[in-house]
Amino acid sequence: MAEVITVVGGGIIGLTTAFELTERGQRVRVYDPTPGERGTGASYFAGGMLAPIAEVQFQQDALFPLMVSSANAYPSLMRRLAAVTDAPTGYDTTGTLVVAGDRADAAHLRDVSEYYRSINRSAEAIPVSRARALEPALAPDLAGAALIEGDHQVAPRLFLQALVKALRARGVEFVRERVTDSDFGDIVCTGLGAAGQYPLRPVYGDILRLQAPHPLVEHVVRGFVNGRPVYVIPRPGGEVCIGATSREDTRTRPGVDGVYQLLKDAIRVVPAVEECELIESNVGVRPGTPDDLPIFGDRTTATGRRQLISNGYFRHGILLAALAGKAGAEVFLGGDIPPEFAPCSPKRFEH
Amino acid sequence: MAEVITVVGGGIIGLTTAFELTERGQRVRVYDPTPGERGTGASYFAGGMLAPIAEVQFQQDALFPLMVSSANAYPSLMRRLAAVTDAPTGYDTTGTLVVAGDRADAAHLRDVSEYYRSINRSAEAIPVSRARALEPALAPDLAGAALIEGDHQVAPRLFLQALVKALRARGVEFVRERVTDSDFGDIVCTGLGAAGQYPLRPVYGDILRLQAPHPLVEHVVRGFVNGRPVYVIPRPGGEVCIGATSREDTRTRPGVDGVYQLLKDAIRVVPAVEECELIESNVGVRPGTPDDLPIFGDRTTATGRRQLISNGYFRHGILLAALAGKAGAEVFLGGDIPPEFAPCSPKRFEH
Repeated sequence: MAEVITVVGGGIIGLTTAFELTERGQRVRVYDPTPGERGTGASYFAGGMLAPIAEVQFQQDALFPLMVSSANAYPSLMRRLAAVTDAPTGYDTTGTLVVAGDRADAAHLRDVSEYYRSINRSAEAIPVSRARALEPALAPDLAGAALIEGDHQVAPRLFLQALVKALRARGVEFVRERVTDSDFGDIVCTGLGAAGQYPLRPVYGDILRLQAPHPLVEHVVRGFVNGRPVYVIPRPGGEVCIGATSREDTRTRPGVDGVYQLLKDAIRVVPAVEECELIESNVGVRPGTPDDLPIFGDRTTATGRRQLISNGYFRHGILLAALAGKAGAEVFLGGDIPPEFAPCSPKRFEH
Repeated sequence: MAEVITVVGGGIIGLTTAFELTERGQRVRVYDPTPGERGTGASYFAGGMLAPIAEVQFQQDALFPLMVSSANAYPSLMRRLAAVTDAPTGYDTTGTLVVAGDRADAAHLRDVSEYYRSINRSAEAIPVSRARALEPALAPDLAGAALIEGDHQVAPRLFLQALVKALRARGVEFVRERVTDSDFGDIVCTGLGAAGQYPLRPVYGDILRLQAPHPLVEHVVRGFVNGRPVYVIPRPGGEVCIGATSREDTRTRPGVDGVYQLLKDAIRVVPAVEECELIESNVGVRPGTPDDLPIFGDRTTATGRRQLISNGYFRHGILLAALAGKAGAEVFLGGDIPPEFAPCSPKRFEH
């Protein structure tokens, strides 16, 4: 009988990795005190944008291929997941509308669109009137708009639950324990849990969950408002998520400044946000690395065992999970490191 | 052996009434599914200002004597409560600072101060520089300030807990049941629970609880900002409450518009509010009456029993609790209706 592969970490990366292992006929055990649930990790509080285009930033040339590969891997993952469970994931390919609050924001939107074109990705500049025809709830006095049909989304909490259900259906055993021994486990997806071995830092993101009296928007709306990004993310049942700030202070609960700015900017872009109820204000903590790239590859533990590290996905854990899961399973089973992951070796932080 | 007096409702009015009954040697039983705890009532989410002066509004001439009487009754209540339990109540007599955001707000502040003087109450107009000497965290560009030394506060959750402890120490029995039979009980303090018999309507108030990195202010700060009131209320342990909106819509969770305005206006008055963490966003529901006055007095139930109604304290439940408790006990035991409660008879709504 085949040995059991142990995955440490039941956030989005650990779960997709475990799923891909089961797809390849492996027996898997997942260690996490709260697999797929509200815990200390980022997955439960993520925005869920599968947005390689809207999310790419200047001078993140090494990150962009990872994002694109993972976005391309999503349709297959979703099809295969749906073959195991009919639990909803909130997977939605409607696309992303990017809008600009003022003329400076519009200039920034044009710069970003130029950059997209330079890397062969398109963000179609559209008149604000067309954006408002697509989404009547948008503010009438926006300064610019672009439609990115390739940027999609999932609802992270649903997606996590669906993965857990699929894994249970496949006979995966969940051990509800926190593993702190760095020598333990075959595949380690513990995020900040690995901060003792790698230079991971906590990066907090404030996120709000609202209940709208009626669905506000169908697309994910990403606004640039006075130079700040804000996301208005429609979810099933008339829920709306608003995120996400990014801060590196020590406040482990939502920052008043962040909550205030999110509300202000979201209302600027979609005024009817004011009519919603505030269900919760939360904060997720992302594992940031010095170069903003994940940590992916083999290491040798203190006792000489082989271990695969798949960690440090920072603000892009949900987007990168499809690729991370596939690559994690393949590499652990003897495959080559995919070229997109070449800059992500754990060795870059081992001295 | 004396009969047990049954009080229905374990919010602030029911608890102070029960306490005053025990002070008079009575045996008491309180019916409430969540006495003194988070429940459906307003007490747990109240701001806790004992502010007859800052809170009085024009043309509330019948309400003002109730507020003043109850504020005057607080020191005695607090002394007698402290004789039974050493549980903290957050009772704080530092006073209230009222500040104005812009010149129109300052003009309003002057009008209100005039009104206070016309009813023989004082709000001392002070220079903004002196207000900032008292509270260095105030914004430097305020347009006006007044000091109201007679307006105090309690911390409602602590106060409720202290009352429950005192009542338990006095042998009061708590029955954790929701009473819906309008015929049941000697003294009925159920707030909106009595909406079937009296014209009580739900009036929601959004309230935020923050954790400050260090205490922000010592006084309760009441701001007028663009014509809107906002309270920044210091609490023990560096907590700060921000409230309170007043709305009569159907949203039973915090309104995004209310939360946004509270943050905006609080930051306008005390900029360092931005540095806080948001612990919770909540909503309390107050029992409003058509004339904004409580419903206080005897009624005869369907089965011909005498019942004392003490309900409908609207936005002023915490402030009015000292008077309501004292008057409730005295009237039930055969005393006269105090003159302040003369306009509050239940008969005005019985046809």
